[in-house]
Amino acid sequence: MHDELIQKLQKTLGNPGILTVPADMAPYCEDWRGLYRGRAAAVLRPATTEQVADAVRLCAEHNVAVVPQGGNTGMVGGTAITGDGSQIVVNLSRLNRIRTIDPIDMTLEVEAGVTLKAAQDAVETAGCLLPLSISSEGTAQIGGVLAVNAGGNNTVKYGNARDLLLGLEVVLPDGQIWNGLRRLRKDNTGYCLRQLFAGSEGTLGIITAAVMKLAPRPRQIEAAMCAVESPQAALDLFRKFQHHDPDAILAFEYMSGEGLDLVIEHIPGASLPLGARAPGYVLVELGVVRTSGDLRAELELILSEAFEAGLVSDAVIAESGQQRASLWKLREEHSEAQKREGASVKNDVSVPVSAVPELLRRASESCERLVPGIRVMPFGHIGDGNIHFNLLQPKEMQASDFLARDREIMSAVNEVVQSLHGSFSAEHGVGCLKTPLMRHWRGGPELEIMHRLKRALDPQGLLNPKKVLPS
Amino acid sequence: MHDELIQKLQKTLGNPGILTVPADMAPYCEDWRGLYRGRAAAVLRPATTEQVADAVRLCAEHNVAVVPQGGNTGMVGGTAITGDGSQIVVNLSRLNRIRTIDPIDMTLEVEAGVTLKAAQDAVETAGCLLPLSISSEGTAQIGGVLAVNAGGNNTVKYGNARDLLLGLEVVLPDGQIWNGLRRLRKDNTGYCLRQLFAGSEGTLGIITAAVMKLAPRPRQIEAAMCAVESPQAALDLFRKFQHHDPDAILAFEYMSGEGLDLVIEHIPGASLPLGARAPGYVLVELGVVRTSGDLRAELELILSEAFEAGLVSDAVIAESGQQRASLWKLREEHSEAQKREGASVKNDVSVPVSAVPELLRRASESCERLVPGIRVMPFGHIGDGNIHFNLLQPKEMQASDFLARDREIMSAVNEVVQSLHGSFSAEHGVGCLKTPLMRHWRGGPELEIMHRLKRALDPQGLLNPKKVLPS
Repeated sequence: MHDELIQKLQKTLGNPGILTVPADMAPYCEDWRGLYRGRAAAVLRPATTEQVADAVRLCAEHNVAVVPQGGNTGMVGGTAITGDGSQIVVNLSRLNRIRTIDPIDMTLEVEAGVTLKAAQDAVETAGCLLPLSISSEGTAQIGGVLAVNAGGNNTVKYGNARDLLLGLEVVLPDGQIWNGLRRLRKDNTGYCLRQLFAGSEGTLGIITAAVMKLAPRPRQIEAAMCAVESPQAALDLFRKFQHHDPDAILAFEYMSGEGLDLVIEHIPGASLPLGARAPGYVLVELGVVRTSGDLRAELELILSEAFEAGLVSDAVIAESGQQRASLWKLREEHSEAQKREGASVKNDVSVPVSAVPELLRRASESCERLVPGIRVMPFGHIGDGNIHFNLLQPKEMQASDFLARDREIMSAVNEVVQSLHGSFSAEHGVGCLKTPLMRHWRGGPELEIMHRLKRALDPQGLLNPKKVLPS
Repeated sequence: MHDELIQKLQKTLGNPGILTVPADMAPYCEDWRGLYRGRAAAVLRPATTEQVADAVRLCAEHNVAVVPQGGNTGMVGGTAITGDGSQIVVNLSRLNRIRTIDPIDMTLEVEAGVTLKAAQDAVETAGCLLPLSISSEGTAQIGGVLAVNAGGNNTVKYGNARDLLLGLEVVLPDGQIWNGLRRLRKDNTGYCLRQLFAGSEGTLGIITAAVMKLAPRPRQIEAAMCAVESPQAALDLFRKFQHHDPDAILAFEYMSGEGLDLVIEHIPGASLPLGARAPGYVLVELGVVRTSGDLRAELELILSEAFEAGLVSDAVIAESGQQRASLWKLREEHSEAQKREGASVKNDVSVPVSAVPELLRRASESCERLVPGIRVMPFGHIGDGNIHFNLLQPKEMQASDFLARDREIMSAVNEVVQSLHGSFSAEHGVGCLKTPLMRHWRGGPELEIMHRLKRALDPQGLLNPKKVLPS
């Protein structure tokens, strides 16, 4: 039965379109974090939407499960192979065409396998901005970015991936193609299917192309690093920037003093850009399209007010694009620095923006009670209420002893997050890593609706099994 | 059977919560356009989410259809009673509490029956802005506004109703309550249910409360009326404003010369604010939170550039809030002026922004070929690609003769819209007026998915029957 399917797929996709030798398939069969490694019957690399559709239809006819895969940069095993070796991976990399960029409409039509970076670059050449930026953008592909509703650094101004989405082309679990590639700012004609597929992590359909909103490129950009006494001061500073000119805030990031210490210790070339160490730091980036007004002067004014109000004890403004990149590097190397220091437990959580200080205080206390000597290293998108609440092993502890307690530590953090009406996954999705949490957090009618939607669109349960929903 | 249900509902809802006398029910049983009048078994006016849930559960147990109703201001019969007298209207007006306004988080939690205007006012008192404005806002209620994904004048900056939506509380067709009242900027934990219910026009669930994003209030606002030679010039002017400062554009509206003539003729107090009549006009409103910079000077600069580039032949800038209101009145009285002039056929269509000039040219030609002497009166949100393409009867024609050809005229317009990959309903939804169009425009896999979703959530088909989806 399976051999027959493989033969049909070979015929449909041609030689470069299908891999069946284990060594060839290996790179597609494990995730980059090393959490999941699986065995697949084949890895398909279709080159067109029609080929994706044909392949999915054949698999459905043979009752074989399909695992869609983009750049494979996910954090939660969303593209993990979960079966006994019969599943088939559909990798979208060869759907890599920029179809159209319309600088009047400010829209981009792009295929799923284009990397986010390639899409950004193409759009920049046309004088526009694709305002989505994540650390994996060189490898992550548009299809996956939309399937997990990626967030990143600039959501405080431009929203998450789904907020940039105008139209979609999707291969459905039975192999039909839905062409919803509309580029309309207003369209109230039935249920909003694009927002159902966005964020569904490949469990309801395979995104093969999308229309995304673009933005004009900012012509003035400024960035500053500020020393703050506390998360509350960081939040008050955010409010001050919002009060002055909310449209100008491109990013507003928080780092703890301990977190930056580690970056400076472990990352070559990293140094403290301020006169003295502080309990916490804010990296704020402003950007505006207008050339009127002096953004630098506006930033200086806000910072001087913040200084007078006691919100900021010190601050440095980047004098060049290179200095701005250096400030960003301090933020972006947090994960790498923590990795070099030892074992860590990661939480990608969100709460209402105003609740971030309480989250940090209570979750820190909980973890310190649980594992004395644990090092709390929160950082991230405080302007969105999204904190990467990472916990580093105590200095004297064995890494394995610490990691053995990872579930316990995550539970302690999540208990605080849930009491603040937050989310256990702000940006990264559920994948198969976090499905066990769904019942407790999204249970009752919410999970029941999700199961119904899954059954309605994928009655055979063949698309990306065991992801998002607990079985 | 029905009597038994009514008795149970009376017991559940108490005296003010149920109307069964025809005279009492009458105001709830017809739409304001006078297109639909129906007979209901009862009109329910529950006061709490729990009462809505109890009522819906009882109806489901008795297999009786429910028609949810907010302010009843819809344009397309979305709250029409479509049955033989057995349907029950659930009016949400008594769910009229503002639950919380959080000026730090910039969120509003509000019940479905609060009017949009009341919500705007409450939020303003707290120093924020609920950035959604539609002409029916004094009567339209939040639940209905979200159920139809209302648009309006400020979507060019703030998006449609769904773009402001963070959380929802929904009574499901079986009477369960889904509490999804989260106020998170980032939350990737399963399918995005709020966006499925938003815009579903009460066919999948009854919205009982919502959490919406707020914005800071602009502290500088300027408006101008500009004379333009053509729709293309209007669009080029839009691009010029976008190029200067896209964040500042609160509204960008187009009016035809003929449309404004009628307003001046029929509306007391209306007069042309410019030196001479023009083929078309743009009403642009700018607003920024920042107090830095001089928005008035920026507007003058852009207009002088536009003048030099030949995009604008004349312009007037409002000197006061009162003058700004006068300019807006010229735009807002278009429907009223047309009504006074005679019979008209209305189309609420959208196309990609760059295609608006072609839409106006081709659709005008089609209509003029079809009905010689027909008067084309397009106006609306050109910055969103959303035009109210209204057509007025020829002067010498009988109104009834003209209206007898309404389907034919709408088809001619829609044919052009469809060839430009547009939408037959940009803002108003489908209701029961436009369901016949769904098969032709959204047919194939798209409509099939919608039907599957409807069956998955409402297997008995009891919620707002005959709306959105063709049977």
